[in-house]
Amino acid sequence: MNRKALQKLSYGVYLVTTSYNGKPYGCVANSAMQITSAPAQIAVSINHDNATHDQIAQSGKFALAILATDTDPALIGGFGYRSSRDADKFAGVSCTEKDGMPVPDGAMAWITCRVVKLMDAGTHTIFLGEVTDCDLNREDGIPMTYQFYHSVIKGASPKNAPTYISPED
Amino acid sequence: MNRKALQKLSYGVYLVTTSYNGKPYGCVANSAMQITSAPAQIAVSINHDNATHDQIAQSGKFALAILATDTDPALIGGFGYRSSRDADKFAGVSCTEKDGMPVPDGAMAWITCRVVKLMDAGTHTIFLGEVTDCDLNREDGIPMTYQFYHSVIKGASPKNAPTYISPED
Repeated sequence: MNRKALQKLSYGVYLVTTSYNGKPYGCVANSAMQITSAPAQIAVSINHDNATHDQIAQSGKFALAILATDTDPALIGGFGYRSSRDADKFAGVSCTEKDGMPVPDGAMAWITCRVVKLMDAGTHTIFLGEVTDCDLNREDGIPMTYQFYHSVIKGASPKNAPTYISPED
Repeated sequence: MNRKALQKLSYGVYLVTTSYNGKPYGCVANSAMQITSAPAQIAVSINHDNATHDQIAQSGKFALAILATDTDPALIGGFGYRSSRDADKFAGVSCTEKDGMPVPDGAMAWITCRVVKLMDAGTHTIFLGEVTDCDLNREDGIPMTYQFYHSVIKGASPKNAPTYISPED
């Protein structure tokens, strides 16, 4: 098995947020895709260890914020590499509430979903969400790909990412 | 709901193949992503109407061929817009067998999977596959993104794609 092949899969870069008991939660994700067109449904894969994981399971909903190539890297840094358990990731982040969930204004587009099914996949859960609303924050903007994140922003994959590569690989 | 937001999700372009009862099946897909790192697992979303859908369910395995930006568009055309029920999609397509499944040599990389779970999502099924093997066919090559397919190759989404957009949208 040559795991370099897995690195040729293409992804975007997203912030996944939710709100439970009046508290906002969020993390960075790259594993999100549309599953059906009618009705529109989206799947995201979230690590069990992420605080956001349990809160999506509790609240039964999530928001997906789509980042652009010109998104401030600090926005990604603020949501990645630390836990909502220890840090207030939303401090100083301008957000607009959508279906009760915080969507960072720095995103180029957003999608809100109601969880209709979930599938345990070992270290991660696949949340299948029916799209309740979605819109663009701006008409321009190029969606940031995971490839761009790696090659231009020089971002790394944390240990809890589906696409994490151990140093031995 | 402004469905333009859904079009900002990022995907690759893949051929999903399988083999059942000695016959090969395959279709074009854009919805594939890695779900977990250890063990490596991949999810693909396939329309119930695709002949390949039932054959993956029967065989319990699938191969994902990753296409490059310089892949011959005829390879995509041959696997899309028609059914394995009516056409021999593999006629004239040079393939190498991996775990008993045909992987087109025109792909830049490939991943074979054993289905470990599936989730019905309405019009589509999400197949969760544990990676049994994967490799590159070549060291160079830029993975073709769905965005590239639309903007450069001028490819369209057929009605059974998760990302299909009806003319009314």
